[in-house]
Amino acid sequence: MTGKPTLAVVGATGAVGAVMLQILSQHADIWGEIRLVASPRSAGKKLAVRGEEIEVLALSEEVFDGVDVAMFDVPDEVSAQWAPIAASKGVVVVDNSAAFRMDPDVPLVVPEVNPHAARVRPRGIVANPNCTTLSMIVAIGALHAEFGLRELIVSSYQAVSGAGRDGVDTLRRQMSLVAGSELGTSPGDVRRAVGDDTGPFPEPVALNVVPWAGTLRDDGWSSEEMKVRDESRKILGLPDLKVAATCVRVPVVTTHSLTVHARFEDEVTVDRAREILATAPGVVLFDNPAAGEFPTPADVVGTDPTWVGRVRRALDDPTALELFVCGDNLRKGAALNTAQIAELVAAEFTGRQP
Amino acid sequence: MTGKPTLAVVGATGAVGAVMLQILSQHADIWGEIRLVASPRSAGKKLAVRGEEIEVLALSEEVFDGVDVAMFDVPDEVSAQWAPIAASKGVVVVDNSAAFRMDPDVPLVVPEVNPHAARVRPRGIVANPNCTTLSMIVAIGALHAEFGLRELIVSSYQAVSGAGRDGVDTLRRQMSLVAGSELGTSPGDVRRAVGDDTGPFPEPVALNVVPWAGTLRDDGWSSEEMKVRDESRKILGLPDLKVAATCVRVPVVTTHSLTVHARFEDEVTVDRAREILATAPGVVLFDNPAAGEFPTPADVVGTDPTWVGRVRRALDDPTALELFVCGDNLRKGAALNTAQIAELVAAEFTGRQP
Repeated sequence: MTGKPTLAVVGATGAVGAVMLQILSQHADIWGEIRLVASPRSAGKKLAVRGEEIEVLALSEEVFDGVDVAMFDVPDEVSAQWAPIAASKGVVVVDNSAAFRMDPDVPLVVPEVNPHAARVRPRGIVANPNCTTLSMIVAIGALHAEFGLRELIVSSYQAVSGAGRDGVDTLRRQMSLVAGSELGTSPGDVRRAVGDDTGPFPEPVALNVVPWAGTLRDDGWSSEEMKVRDESRKILGLPDLKVAATCVRVPVVTTHSLTVHARFEDEVTVDRAREILATAPGVVLFDNPAAGEFPTPADVVGTDPTWVGRVRRALDDPTALELFVCGDNLRKGAALNTAQIAELVAAEFTGRQP
Repeated sequence: MTGKPTLAVVGATGAVGAVMLQILSQHADIWGEIRLVASPRSAGKKLAVRGEEIEVLALSEEVFDGVDVAMFDVPDEVSAQWAPIAASKGVVVVDNSAAFRMDPDVPLVVPEVNPHAARVRPRGIVANPNCTTLSMIVAIGALHAEFGLRELIVSSYQAVSGAGRDGVDTLRRQMSLVAGSELGTSPGDVRRAVGDDTGPFPEPVALNVVPWAGTLRDDGWSSEEMKVRDESRKILGLPDLKVAATCVRVPVVTTHSLTVHARFEDEVTVDRAREILATAPGVVLFDNPAAGEFPTPADVVGTDPTWVGRVRRALDDPTALELFVCGDNLRKGAALNTAQIAELVAAEFTGRQP
């Protein structure tokens, strides 16, 4: 192939799709035609990408004619059906659903951590990790490369946009109902103010935190917590890595935060950890509490890197580090990593470095 | 002594003081006179307790004349100065500041965990733990009694009222500034909307989470994180307990939540852990994710117990449990535990069981 590769964006009208189009307009322009695809009810809509208005096409077999790479951000069941159809037509699918992530014939790729994995794709599909895993894994991968990771104990502070536009709209509605009130001081007062309007969440999320994300799996674990474990193991190539995650929703619009207790093979030093994090691609070390410097979602939202602060060595375990990590769940946590994988794949077509 | 003991409440006009007066009005009426004390600028104010309006007295040596027990909720430096003065006059001081908690001659007491410790008080002072420690320690203590605790790795989701009335006012002001807006989607937009009005917090707390509480200690740890470690060790009588805490402020008015990874001496089972938690005094087990049951601050605020949900055994470590714990930081986290200690002490005077 000599010209620029053709890209399809499937799910172009969603919250993550919107960020994908932003990123395509900002990154080096390696693509030839860009085709926007969504469900039939969004077909005909026009969306801007690379400064041009492009009409959205309804998902069908034909939209993949002549496409080289497709980025999918659609519900699991839509990916499960349509990614293999696109792949059967020679398209390399980069899929951001959970449908293929744990398929042994589908690589799960974070370009800063395991870019080589994207080259081996027996099903023609490359999977993009879950947003919670992605919000920390670039930093963890850099530390693992030097220290050898043995165990991760993580707690999340997950933004509502992880549950899509409905999640954001729900928080905004609830915020309007509780702001300016004296709520949050007696049992159930926030729940009564919010009524049944909890949107995609099981409990009110304004003035609250909700220790649940996803669906119920075995032994009381949530699907989100299992994803953090399973996907971290697969990305890092550590099938026996010990992982314990607790996933909690917080009233933040966008940017997931995580506390991380990471235990390594041998003793670690904070100085060396800071050197690694300060130089790792895709990571910003922002860690000077004396100067009030540590990442928070309010500063990290809208940015690409994984921000790391509060780097400490565990006082009672010289092999463990404590970190506080923030990443924009719509950018690195979804659209950006998907675009980076697509760029890796495109480089194979054009023979250029991404 | 034959009559009912006399109680002084020092710091009666603060956020915790208000809850102390509520609790004194609700609990069995074991006290004779109740004297309300505050700084000179609040003297003369009248506050309701046990259905009566009582005039607030300015803090002085004389206010302790004839007092048997005093509950202090004042800044560290005020306690450091005045608790020994009260104690020198024969008053048993139950102090909720950090001034004496780690003093080897001052017991640090949680009545459900180490009530015996309250009887040995060489300085005439009993200390009340920090609110973050208190929000989990009753549940942890019950599990420790059966399984033998070896390590705690905890992350907090701390309410703004942990920083007093100023913390609550700051969140409410910020909520009014950001509600109904499209903020929270680009870097610094929340910060710009909030301006310099961050109150007692280093960053905006509405639509945000802030990985900092307290002051800077050695090696990047916050004072709040060190309190969780030091106080847990002292209360549980485990001077070598491994503890790693990361303390994070969230936009919740009242009720601290914590994720807890607790590692024990031997294998644990979830069934036995649930039995222990279901029957432990001061603990409510609320744990049925299939029915949407797990504690959140919105339901726990205003209640006395430590609520525990999301009980799981670590998938990769049969000696470890994962928990999500909520406790009202003004009640069990401060005023309630202080009142419970005062009641324990009062029982010595009257010879009755508290």
